Order: sequence, then C-alpha cells, then structure tokens
Amino acid sequence: MTFEEARKNLRDLELREFAFNHAAGMLYFDGVTAAPKGTYVSRGKTLSVLNEEMYKLSSGEAAQETLRVLGERLDELTPAERRLVQLREKALRFRSRVPMDEYVAYQELLNESATVWREAKEKSDFTLFQPLLEKIVAANRRFAGLVEPDKDPYDFWLDNYEEGMTQAFCDSFFAKLREKLVPLMAKVAASEQPDTSLLGVRFPLDKQAELSAWLMRFLRLDPERCALTTTEHPFTIDFSRHDVRITTKYHENAFTSSMFSVIHEGGHALYELGTGEDYAFTQLGRGVSMGVHESQSRFYENIIGRSRAFCELAWPELVRLCPELGRYDAEAFYRAVNASKPGLIRIEADELSYSLHIMVRYELERALLHGEAKVSELPERWNALYKQYLGVDVPDDAHGVLQDSHWSGGDLGYFPSYALGSAYGAQLMARMREGFDPDAAVASGDITPVNAWLGECIWQYGGLKTPSELMREALGGDFDPGYYTDYLEAKMREVYRF
Amino acid sequence: MTFEEARKNLRDLELREFAFNHAAGMLYFDGVTAAPKGTYVSRGKTLSVLNEEMYKLSSGEAAQETLRVLGERLDELTPAERRLVQLREKALRFRSRVPMDEYVAYQELLNESATVWREAKEKSDFTLFQPLLEKIVAANRRFAGLVEPDKDPYDFWLDNYEEGMTQAFCDSFFAKLREKLVPLMAKVAASEQPDTSLLGVRFPLDKQAELSAWLMRFLRLDPERCALTTTEHPFTIDFSRHDVRITTKYHENAFTSSMFSVIHEGGHALYELGTGEDYAFTQLGRGVSMGVHESQSRFYENIIGRSRAFCELAWPELVRLCPELGRYDAEAFYRAVNASKPGLIRIEADELSYSLHIMVRYELERALLHGEAKVSELPERWNALYKQYLGVDVPDDAHGVLQDSHWSGGDLGYFPSYALGSAYGAQLMARMREGFDPDAAVASGDITPVNAWLGECIWQYGGLKTPSELMREALGGDFDPGYYTDYLEAKMREVYRF
Repeated sequence: MTFEEARKNLRDLELREFAFNHAAGMLYFDGVTAAPKGTYVSRGKTLSVLNEEMYKLSSGEAAQETLRVLGERLDELTPAERRLVQLREKALRFRSRVPMDEYVAYQELLNESATVWREAKEKSDFTLFQPLLEKIVAANRRFAGLVEPDKDPYDFWLDNYEEGMTQAFCDSFFAKLREKLVPLMAKVAASEQPDTSLLGVRFPLDKQAELSAWLMRFLRLDPERCALTTTEHPFTIDFSRHDVRITTKYHENAFTSSMFSVIHEGGHALYELGTGEDYAFTQLGRGVSMGVHESQSRFYENIIGRSRAFCELAWPELVRLCPELGRYDAEAFYRAVNASKPGLIRIEADELSYSLHIMVRYELERALLHGEAKVSELPERWNALYKQYLGVDVPDDAHGVLQDSHWSGGDLGYFPSYALGSAYGAQLMARMREGFDPDAAVASGDITPVNAWLGECIWQYGGLKTPSELMREALGGDFDPGYYTDYLEAKMREVYRF
Repeated sequence: MTFEEARKNLRDLELREFAFNHAAGMLYFDGVTAAPKGTYVSRGKTLSVLNEEMYKLSSGEAAQETLRVLGERLDELTPAERRLVQLREKALRFRSRVPMDEYVAYQELLNESATVWREAKEKSDFTLFQPLLEKIVAANRRFAGLVEPDKDPYDFWLDNYEEGMTQAFCDSFFAKLREKLVPLMAKVAASEQPDTSLLGVRFPLDKQAELSAWLMRFLRLDPERCALTTTEHPFTIDFSRHDVRITTKYHENAFTSSMFSVIHEGGHALYELGTGEDYAFTQLGRGVSMGVHESQSRFYENIIGRSRAFCELAWPELVRLCPELGRYDAEAFYRAVNASKPGLIRIEADELSYSLHIMVRYELERALLHGEAKVSELPERWNALYKQYLGVDVPDDAHGVLQDSHWSGGDLGYFPSYALGSAYGAQLMARMREGFDPDAAVASGDITPVNAWLGECIWQYGGLKTPSELMREALGGDFDPGYYTDYLEAKMREVYRF
C-alpha cells in the first residue's frame, strides 16, 4: 500500500463509517419517534449487521495497514489526517487488546442490563440490578487493565469520555466548586424564596409548540438542517452538519420543562451545525466531546436562557401564547426559573445544586472502579452522600441510585463531563464579554454575535483539536472554575437579593 | 467453498442485503416524512455508500462462487434456497452483462431525469423532458439486448417488473378487456349519472385522521407492526414483515381521496405483514411482484372498499365523524364512490376506465422499445389514444404524457401490472365466494375470513413462487379476465340501474 493509497483509504474508511453510523442513527431515531413497538425485531437485525460492518471496517487488515503506512509519515499529513490517525489508533488499541468474545459478551450484558435497570427502577428495587452492575464494574475494570495496564482504571474511563480528563483534575475542580457552592447554598436556603407558582400555569400544548418554534428562530437554528420532534426523553441526534434533529416533551402544567429542553438541545444542535464543512462525513465532523458539548448546551440553556435579558425578551411572547401569565411579570419569571432548591433528582436540579449531584456519582464511580466499594453498598453510600452534599433524605432507590441510566449502559466515568461543561460555559461568557456585550445581543433579539463567536472559537473545529486544546484556545488561557462560582454567586445575589 | 459453506453464505448474503435495504429504505422514508429539506446532502452520501455495498455484496466473487457451488447441487436445496439462487442468478446476469460504467451513467441519467421531468410537468412542456427520455429509451433497448439478446426488448422489460409477463399475454388480456369495457362505458355514459355532491363535503382533517384509524382497525392491520403517517403522495414501504409503514394525504373537501388511499395502502401492508416468518430477512420475505401486490391493494380498495356491504358498514361511522353527511344515505355513498366518468388522469380514474389508461401507456411503451415510435411523437400519439380509448381531449402535456413519473425513472414495462392486479382481484373474489361469503364478513365488520383466505393462498408464500404459479394455485386454475369484466358489468348495472 503506497502512502497516497493509504490516504485515500483513510478518506474512504471515514466516509463508510459515517454512512453506517448515519444509517444506524436513523434507525434508532425512527425507533423512538415514528416506529410502532413490534418493529424492534427487524431493527435489531439490521443494527447487528451495521455494527458488524463497522467493526470489520475499522479493525480489518486494510484499516490496520492504512494506519501503519500513515503512521510512518505523520509529518506529511494534514492536521485533520493526523488527528484521524491518532483517534483510529486509540480505538484500534481498545479493540485489539480486548478479546472479541469478551467484548461481544459485554455488549450482551449491556443489552440485558438496560432492560433490568428499567424494571428495577420501576419497582424501586436495587437488588434486581445489583448482579448486572457487579458484572459491568468487573468488565470495566478488566478492560481498562487490558488496554492500558499502567493507568488507573478510573482515569482510563474518564479519558474515554472526555479526552485528557483525570481524577487529579476532577478532585481539584470539585474541591473548588464545593468550597464556594456549599456556603452559597446555605445563604440561598436562608433567604426568602421567590414565588414559583407561575411555573405551574396551564400552557396549552399547541401553544408550547409555537413557543418552541419561536425559540428555534431566536437561536437561529437553520430550519433547513434542523427539525424538532417529540419523544419520551428530550435529546439531540446529529447525523451530520447538514442534518441534526432535536426532541422535546411537553407537559401542560410545566411549560419551562420543554422550553429549557428546546434551548438546551438547540445548543447541542448549533454546535453540530456549526462544524466545518471540511470535516463533514468524517469523525471530525462532530462536536469533540461530551464536556465541550455540554458547555454549549448548558451555556444556551442557563447562561443565555435563564439570563435577565432573555427572560425580558421572551416574556411578551410567553404572555401572548399563555395570557394567564399576564398576572405575573418578567422579573417574577426571571426569579422563578433561577430559584434554587436542593432535590433528589439530577435532571431536575437547578444550576446551583447541579454539580453536587455530579460529585455524588463521581465519588461512587471512582470507589467502584478502584475496588474500594462494593456494588451492594451503593444504595447506602448514595443516600449518605445525598444527605451530606445536598441535605436531602432519599426515600427509595428509584429516587436515588437507580435514577440514571448511565451505569446500566456501562458508562462509568461519564458524569464529570456534565459539571465541566457548565463551568466551561461561565468562563466562555466572561471571555466573550471582553469583546462585545452578549446581553445586549440577547436583549435585541439578535443572538448572531454570540453564535458567531462560539462558531469561530469552538464549533468550526469539530473534532480537530483535543477538548483541552480547544478550550484553552477559546478561553485564551487555562480553565478556571472560579468564573463558574462567581457567575453562580452573582446570579444568586440578584435572584435572592442578599 | 464447500456446499454447506455456500448455503451459509447464501443466508448471510440475504441478511446483509436485507439490512442495507432496510437502512436505505429508512433514510428514504425519513426524507419524505420528518426530514428538513437541506438534509438531502448527507442522505445522498450515505445512500451512495449503501448502494455501493449492496452492489459489491451481490456481485462480488464470494457471491458468484456461492451461486456456482449451489447451482451444481440444486436438488439438495430447500425450495426457498433454490428460488433464491434463481433470483440471484437473474440479477447477476444483468449486472455481469451491462458494463458497470454504462450502468452508473444510466443511474445518473435517471437522477437528472427525475428533476427535469418534474420541471417539464410544472411547465407542461414535453420538449424539456424529450432529450432525456430519448436517452432512457435508448439505454433500455440496449440493456435488454445485452442481457437477453434473443428476447424481444419489451418482453424483457415486462418480465423485469412482472416475472413471466409477455406481450402475447398483454395483447390477449387487453383485447378481452376492451371488447367488454368499451360498450359498457358507452352504456354508463348514456345512463343517468348519480349525485356525487357528497364527495365534496367539508370533512375536518382531524376527523379524517380518526376515520383512518377506524379503517386500519377494520382491515385488522396489526398496530404493533404497521403505522400510518402523512406525505405528499400516499405510498407503502415495507421494511420487513415486522415493520410496514403506510402513508396518506388528507384533503378537507375530498375525504374519499384519503379514505380509499388508506384502504389501498392497507392492502399492500396486509400482504407484506402476512408473508411467512420463514422468509423474513431474505428477499423472499416480501410480496412477489407489482401485479400480485396491486391485486391485493386494489382488491381491498375497490372490491371490498367500494362494495355495497362496506359502504353500509362505514356509513354510520362517516356520519358520526362528519354530521353534514347525514343529509345523504349509504346508497347515495355507494353510488357516488362507484360513479364512472372517463377522464384525463390515471391516478384519479374510476375502476371502469382505469384499464384504458393503462392500455394507452402499453401501446406507447411497446412502440418506443420496438423503435416504432419516436419519443418526439409521444404527445401527439398520447393525445390521439386518449381520444380513441377514453373519448377525452388532452388540453396540455401536464394532463397528458407528462402526468406519470414512471418513464422518468426508467420504468418502461411497469404499467401493465396495474391492470393485471385489478383483474386478478376480481377472480380471487369469485374463488373466495366458493368457500364462504366475503360480503357477509364485511357486513359483520369482521373481515378476518377474507384476510385468512388471502393469507393462506397468497401472502404466506412471499416471493417463494413465481407470480403466475402463485396466482394459478390461488385461483384454482388459469387466469381469466372475464371475472373482472363480469364484476365491472354487475357493479355498473347496480350503480347505474340499467
């Protein structure tokens, strides 16, 4: 294989993997939107074939030879090609060091686990899920040891979800958050609570759909490349920079649930739609990591969407769509959507207490992967940490250790990127303010300067740089969680008036 | 490759082709339902890759060797395996005899042609489309000559769409139809016309959606495996016997348009959902041909759906959903939906005149493929045949030769199967009556005996038998278009009271 043949092969591998992923993603998307229940039978057949094709493609001899030839002349490659080689080598290392039969058995375990976790959550009975989670933890520890025997197993998995992330980083990051946020939460709890009754007004579903359309126009999501639909759980799926779908769920008596979902998923979509055309149809044509993705979605949801400027801009539209809101005003809306109250459920958490939910999971995942905690001890440890960090009593496992699906999917090491994303967002906003006034842009109803800045500094690069490189350049320096805690403190002062 | 390896390869080839077809079909389906416009870019990329994979899979050396090994010991194969080998050999013969570059150029021609045909139809200007159709006709003649040099080129293409169909068959079939239908149409034209004003009542769209649900329940379509959605043009797409989607389009002032679309597409869906589980995930797990498919869809749409028994059954439901219809009665509904009037547009044609629309196309396609007519003469010939067969004057090409998309897609030889399907249906009904009373089943609201009979005689076999074998066995003898003309005559006598 010549060098030029290998370069061509690389492009071809990327295109084929893109196509198989696109097709598999479309089947998944249909499965959670339009498909009737019984269609899972043929969907399962087709997904197995596509997954097998992808496995063969990326691990086959042609792929290995391509990487070998290109690896010898890295200097002559474009930066994008070099990055692709690097990412493919990492993936190949995993596949070559984990025996195929163990990997297949693990996938079957995860399939079973998804069903059992759902049942365990419904029955609020952790013991049902426990034997499966024990196997998952054992497999995750084993795989980490096989692939990178010299690395701490939790560091291995952290890096798997957020390239470059380590426990050392998380420890320091979470310690800084805790130091600032725990006293701030105490202050908030001691203050007079804002009236949040407006959040429960009856907002007809068709009017909420109109609100979604208004929000998507506000975000300047290209309607030719992005569509909204409804599903049981809101999510974003990116097929390419030419095709991103977001979903929401409407609740008649909780209009802000869908409202902030649309803004959150819209943030993910903007990132995907903004990746550079040069990277399209390759694995670089996507947001680079979970952490950076959450930095965009949570930026739009919280820093923009829960800002005073946006609350004031949206208020007349909200009252037009739901005249019952006319009894309140924009300031009441601003205070209500920023009210903070520590609770049991992560996905319902306010901005201030959100990171503490993550810290509970971080402590437990780490202990599991280090063999310092048994799976059987999880409920007890979970409940103790919720009492310690959030001051709440967990009534049952459904509202405790069984609430999230991540561990049942084998994803231990994934949660910290959520907290990181939130903190990135605050620092990005501060950096943006050095160049222009984002609040004025929001107030004017034309968010273009904000989108343009993020597009320039982050979105356009897709997966070209590592997450930490990308953020260091966008932030113009090192990451500093102080921006996040300052932002939260300032907002709480405004909302709680202390 | 051993015999047993080859058998395993055959299963594997079938499963893989099923999966790629399923994935490609899902992308297409998304494209005409949920996808925003600009998403065509990535859909095009992915479809190219999937098509290329399918081509390589079915024409590659492994596939050829598999067929060679199995071909030597056909007697030891199951009937399904033998049929698969036969179908694959036929497809392979086409691919091996048509040079790859010509085939690719032809696909590009068809792509361009689809766009140009649409524009030509919008502008009602045949000359725009003419040069492309000339190339299509030339290519179709050439391919027929390359693949089966000893066969008449129109027979080649007839057989391509409806295995076993020939001009000799069509000539005799159409002659018999013409002989009976032309005088019948004259009688109908001379009779007093039924009042059709009820077809234009305002029927709210949400109530039409309720009607669709009622119709799908009446048809006993399994809601776990079949869903309805709306599109610009109604169609059925079958992913497998576990997953069939049908579509419709609602018109507020023409409720029977969607009503009979749902029944028609429902007929296609019943056939697909009824194919045997043994054939699932192979190319035998589908309806065997266009003609047999139309025999089912048009059976449900016309023979069941436009029967007096069904009109009486549906009437109370129609009045409940649209009280304005209360001014009429079931008999008026029955007469209105069976009223016959020769017109310009095939897809709007009534049962009686439908076959004549097909005959026009048959004459023209044949003349083109035999080189007896020039493409440039088509509009003139078309208009003359419409005058001759249907007695109508064609005002422009949009309402004439440009009305159908088939030729722009390269499908010359496809139309006759529509007429054949209609005629099959009438004979199936007569055959069914020998065993039980289908009208009584319809009148009772429980159509199970009808579905069970068709399932037993036709659906379960999927693509195992050739269309003519299948129909001969189901009909208990030779095909006889006399059943169809008798059926039409009896119905016209009832509706027109002559």
